[in-house]
Amino acid sequence: MCELLGMNCNVPTDICFSFRGFQQRGGGTGVHTDGWGIAFFEGRGARLFLDPQPSVHSPIARLVSDYPIRSCNVIAHIRKATHGTVKLENTHPFMRELWGRQWIFAHNGKMPDLAPALNGAFMPVGDTDSERVFCWLLQELRQRFGNVMPPRLTLLETLWELTNTLADRGIFNYLLSNGDCLFAHCSEHLHYLVRRAPFSVAHLTDEDVSVDFRDLTGPKDSVAIIATQPLTDNEVWQKMPPGTLWLFSDGEPIEYLGTHPAVRDK
Amino acid sequence: MCELLGMNCNVPTDICFSFRGFQQRGGGTGVHTDGWGIAFFEGRGARLFLDPQPSVHSPIARLVSDYPIRSCNVIAHIRKATHGTVKLENTHPFMRELWGRQWIFAHNGKMPDLAPALNGAFMPVGDTDSERVFCWLLQELRQRFGNVMPPRLTLLETLWELTNTLADRGIFNYLLSNGDCLFAHCSEHLHYLVRRAPFSVAHLTDEDVSVDFRDLTGPKDSVAIIATQPLTDNEVWQKMPPGTLWLFSDGEPIEYLGTHPAVRDK
Repeated sequence: MCELLGMNCNVPTDICFSFRGFQQRGGGTGVHTDGWGIAFFEGRGARLFLDPQPSVHSPIARLVSDYPIRSCNVIAHIRKATHGTVKLENTHPFMRELWGRQWIFAHNGKMPDLAPALNGAFMPVGDTDSERVFCWLLQELRQRFGNVMPPRLTLLETLWELTNTLADRGIFNYLLSNGDCLFAHCSEHLHYLVRRAPFSVAHLTDEDVSVDFRDLTGPKDSVAIIATQPLTDNEVWQKMPPGTLWLFSDGEPIEYLGTHPAVRDK
Repeated sequence: MCELLGMNCNVPTDICFSFRGFQQRGGGTGVHTDGWGIAFFEGRGARLFLDPQPSVHSPIARLVSDYPIRSCNVIAHIRKATHGTVKLENTHPFMRELWGRQWIFAHNGKMPDLAPALNGAFMPVGDTDSERVFCWLLQELRQRFGNVMPPRLTLLETLWELTNTLADRGIFNYLLSNGDCLFAHCSEHLHYLVRRAPFSVAHLTDEDVSVDFRDLTGPKDSVAIIATQPLTDNEVWQKMPPGTLWLFSDGEPIEYLGTHPAVRDK
């Protein structure tokens, strides 16, 4: 299995602190040694760093954890291969363009028996179930809405419907962003927290490193962090109930759909 | 105007030496300060590094010039903006998936009056003429060949035909690769050389740095370097005649189409 990390903010923020802890799980404190990747939106553009090496030994991961790239939407992934061999084209996150926007997708779970029919509009480059599902999701979005991107709440409802046609076929935790907002589906394990004023000190679980966010933030900043497992040991993380799809925008969860009663902090 | 750098090899090779000289032109020895990017194919996957900063000051460019990433097909670009502002989504190379392969494209020139009709299959994320033309090329390839990628010589002929419908609309030097081979169109300025045994010492034009390829290569290695302007001052670069489209594979030019008599070294 893999681990996911996402960030959604109301002002461009760097993810160096969270990524530093997350990176340790790729061969240091965790067994996710089969590659890693991270995507940062900047405006409509996206930077995508991929490496089939363990993140704990990767020079590119070192650059990402040291070099503050500020973004309002970030998706990262460390991989423990269950489907598809260890190679660059099987490394998450995956990126495709739809409606003149980049879409970024990362998946934690496995859907081994899934072979959704693809019409050629979006085809997988590698051989993971994850990339195939991503291609299918985009294909279905385009088929329903043609050449015009619908409003984000319509996107949420449609993704919920599409996700539910697949959710009983395996484990399907995923993060998806078009640079405007971030969708998070919890099929089994996914946590989040929102950092906002009054800010305080956070301490990583995977490395003895703390940061005082009072030194780094403005009074109106809001930063949502989404992760498979909590990354800090002195903050309160919300466990997302299984079977929920969340829409994060401007640094907080603004809507969710689910069959289970959801725990909210707003 | 911008500058292009491409590499096509028969064995995965790093581009650290050539990129080191090329990078200097992004704000050091050259005026191309409006961003830079480089794409490396590894198998069917591609790593894409983009930065809207000048390459000479970019920490990511420093990583790329120091960290040997081995690849058989590389495309790099440094930008002097003529169309579209300086931002990430306007930074070359551009990447899209077609036929389950990544396609990478970078353009040197300008086509200011060009607005080819796009049907929505591939839409620009930024606002450069270059990305718009790339989307149009892929759209036309898909329309002609459906869901099956044709052989590379058929691709060459089709690209030649499509390119010629645009070539009188502006300056259209470009590099395009799907990870299998590399296409290079010379509209005005483009040079190449092939390094193969017996290898010798090469010296950069833009920095006082030499490399002895005898220490780094095997007897059967073949490496084609394509660049807007020669990168070394002690090797013989071939100037491509304007109005030619070249197909590079396994480290050498294997075919070209053009209205001008071409200079070949094979």
